[in-house]
Amino acid sequence: MNAPTIPADLAAWCSANDARAQDELFAFLRIPSVSARSEHKADCAEAAQFVADALTRIGFTATIEPTPGHPIVVGEWRKAGPDAPTLLVYGHYDVQPAEPLELWTSPAFEPTVRDGRIYARGSVDDKGQLYLHIKALEAHLAVRGTLPVNVIVLAEGEEEVGSENLEQFLEREKTRLACDAVVISDSTMFAPGIPSILSSLRGMAYLEINVRGANGDLHSGMYGGAVVNPAMALARILATMHDADGRIAIPGFYESVRPFPDAVLAQMRELPFSDEHLMHEVGVTALGGEPGYTTLERLWTRPTCEVNGMLSGYTGEGAKTVLPAVSMAKVSFRLVPDQDPAVIGALVQAHVERVAPPGVTVTVENLHGGRPWRADLKGPIIEAGKRALEAAFGRAPVITGEGGSIPVVGDFERILGAPVLLMGFGLPGENAHAPDEWISVENYLGGIRAAATLLDEYRAAAREANAIGVSA
Amino acid sequence: MNAPTIPADLAAWCSANDARAQDELFAFLRIPSVSARSEHKADCAEAAQFVADALTRIGFTATIEPTPGHPIVVGEWRKAGPDAPTLLVYGHYDVQPAEPLELWTSPAFEPTVRDGRIYARGSVDDKGQLYLHIKALEAHLAVRGTLPVNVIVLAEGEEEVGSENLEQFLEREKTRLACDAVVISDSTMFAPGIPSILSSLRGMAYLEINVRGANGDLHSGMYGGAVVNPAMALARILATMHDADGRIAIPGFYESVRPFPDAVLAQMRELPFSDEHLMHEVGVTALGGEPGYTTLERLWTRPTCEVNGMLSGYTGEGAKTVLPAVSMAKVSFRLVPDQDPAVIGALVQAHVERVAPPGVTVTVENLHGGRPWRADLKGPIIEAGKRALEAAFGRAPVITGEGGSIPVVGDFERILGAPVLLMGFGLPGENAHAPDEWISVENYLGGIRAAATLLDEYRAAAREANAIGVSA
Repeated sequence: MNAPTIPADLAAWCSANDARAQDELFAFLRIPSVSARSEHKADCAEAAQFVADALTRIGFTATIEPTPGHPIVVGEWRKAGPDAPTLLVYGHYDVQPAEPLELWTSPAFEPTVRDGRIYARGSVDDKGQLYLHIKALEAHLAVRGTLPVNVIVLAEGEEEVGSENLEQFLEREKTRLACDAVVISDSTMFAPGIPSILSSLRGMAYLEINVRGANGDLHSGMYGGAVVNPAMALARILATMHDADGRIAIPGFYESVRPFPDAVLAQMRELPFSDEHLMHEVGVTALGGEPGYTTLERLWTRPTCEVNGMLSGYTGEGAKTVLPAVSMAKVSFRLVPDQDPAVIGALVQAHVERVAPPGVTVTVENLHGGRPWRADLKGPIIEAGKRALEAAFGRAPVITGEGGSIPVVGDFERILGAPVLLMGFGLPGENAHAPDEWISVENYLGGIRAAATLLDEYRAAAREANAIGVSA
Repeated sequence: MNAPTIPADLAAWCSANDARAQDELFAFLRIPSVSARSEHKADCAEAAQFVADALTRIGFTATIEPTPGHPIVVGEWRKAGPDAPTLLVYGHYDVQPAEPLELWTSPAFEPTVRDGRIYARGSVDDKGQLYLHIKALEAHLAVRGTLPVNVIVLAEGEEEVGSENLEQFLEREKTRLACDAVVISDSTMFAPGIPSILSSLRGMAYLEINVRGANGDLHSGMYGGAVVNPAMALARILATMHDADGRIAIPGFYESVRPFPDAVLAQMRELPFSDEHLMHEVGVTALGGEPGYTTLERLWTRPTCEVNGMLSGYTGEGAKTVLPAVSMAKVSFRLVPDQDPAVIGALVQAHVERVAPPGVTVTVENLHGGRPWRADLKGPIIEAGKRALEAAFGRAPVITGEGGSIPVVGDFERILGAPVLLMGFGLPGENAHAPDEWISVENYLGGIRAAATLLDEYRAAAREANAIGVSA
């Protein structure tokens, strides 16, 4: 097979439109569409409208579908003819909260380019990676007046709060959303210049533990030593979640873990990864984690237990001698196939209730869950993705895993019966959920080219697969 | 020895002057002498002047001594003759802030009598308990024109903000303040109708532990499982502070604990105390603490380790998948004789550094310390206090402990070399630092009688001690 390249007509259009592609993204990034905060409800609606307008402008039919939460935008273009496969592009227009605001070098919702990076909340997660697909579609329609495949764009506004209404929407609209493949760009490349196809995602069970002691804050001198301290009780509960070596000590936790294929693990071990580099990147002098695994294995193939937040009592300046009435921790578990978030949530709850000391009342609330996922790594969309990435970035992609979660991936496969290609353009250190989030200008523009090339390559790979009798 | 009674002449004067004693206290309580708030500086000065005037009016020489903070009032009456001992009466004219104001049934600075209680900020802590001594001194001077012992009254205005200038004042003025005993009324009786002598106070070592991991918050999916979580590390550190049974597990922590005398413990076990009552009061279904001790022993005679505050990561609504960069806990240790706050602070620091996992940096900062205290429970002032309380309340006092701290007590003993009698007239539930603070009318008036009787009893007990060769 010939070495893949970006089709010349699309490449020329891209070069002529790179500046505008950035300006339009900036306008998108200025909308503070924080799905977690009710005061940003109107901003989320505005971001949905922005996506719908962008799709309409390039020739799609776009509708904004209300949900009990934030709306879902569906764009459709179905004129590729009866033999052409249908590709669904998924992304999300909502973003994480920007706090702590004081740690941003430039304002979170005022996109700023520094050192070849676009800094803004949502730049890489996921507005930039959604919008580059829209620009790739525009390239085809502007240059050729058509697309090589039928395309559905689905942009939701609740990814950062658990995609609560997406699954139901997919179920309800599965006829309209029927497709042959799904492409999602909401992940990272392994390293700058190394395009990547993501083959596994961890799932998640996110819980909030609340410990209640007395019916009000007490004087720690007058009551301390006899009334159980909910903050100390919480610390002791959290400390039981791992054993001394770093294994998760919740009974039954590892029971349904299915080992990764040896081939995937072997390829993983060949990736140019250095513990020292990671330590330097995040500013620590040692790493930790489950014994018996490399760092990449810990990040991609093993489940975890993390405290995401913790609060109790007096946290201001100086000393206040309070025995707190309550304490709270947000605790999340990253899951790997075939762990089930509901099962894990129940195991954690049972464990917490078992180890909680008398004298406090403990409640465990399930805030959010998502299934882990592992790709098949076969079929036309994967082949097309490999060639499109090679065309745009000059080298064949590596196969990676991902420690984070994109719960919708499993939903797409299950409900629509279509394989998913995860082709991400973020980079390590992108601060996806932290201050100073960024996407590199090079990857944003390269992403447009890869996404544009993908359509041609997918049409070709599907045709070839059909010719030899494999389903597109 | 004969059963103690209130001397008849003093009793008659008290009865005739009870109404005026309340009116004068109300005027004192109307001054909002909140030492913590700079806008109340003039009010604190007015309260100091009020005390000085009250002392001058009854025949004392009074001076108002400026300090870098609020002034100290010193009243002196030294005409009891060369053989008579000198008693120093300590109290404070400053009060806690009254906020939250909306939770007061009647205004904080408008004293109101309801159900036999005087409600006002400062009523029990400590204006009422200071002023009852001044009325007792007045009783003697009005009826007899003299006092049986020399008396120094020392009233400070910074007790509620840590008595920052008192220690230095005692050092500087220790010749002028030289005395044979100190009496302080700034504590509570064990229960209504049960007069009490407070024999021990816990000290304190208050530390802040900060744990730092990565140089910024990270995505818990992308880094979780390999980068050490500072919130989890903190939880594990805190969990090592107690063993599984509830004993403090910091090496050396109990080394300098000096057991309480068996007699004190035996008396404590006879006090009418009920775990059920405490559980009901604070709203819990079980108590906890160090094994092998009763609740009162845990509160009064044993050191503790409490988390006063804890903060890390995301603590808002919903789920945020952050791997926090830092975590913080405020941890305080209540101490008992002979634990030294500096030594305990160093032990904790060494322990925390030893148990902290690799991959995080831990700092321990000493925020505040105070020495524990225990009374000798021997000598003329204690004997006199027992008889005076029995005379005024109709039964012998019980010996109590206190879980909190009154750091000045140790200062008086150390700097002036005089034993301290803690004879309090507050009651459980008095809301000393909360809205609706109160002192019972019965205890305020009974306190005047007890304090008046104390002077005669102290003179007698000192004379007797001298006769048998014991220092007064």
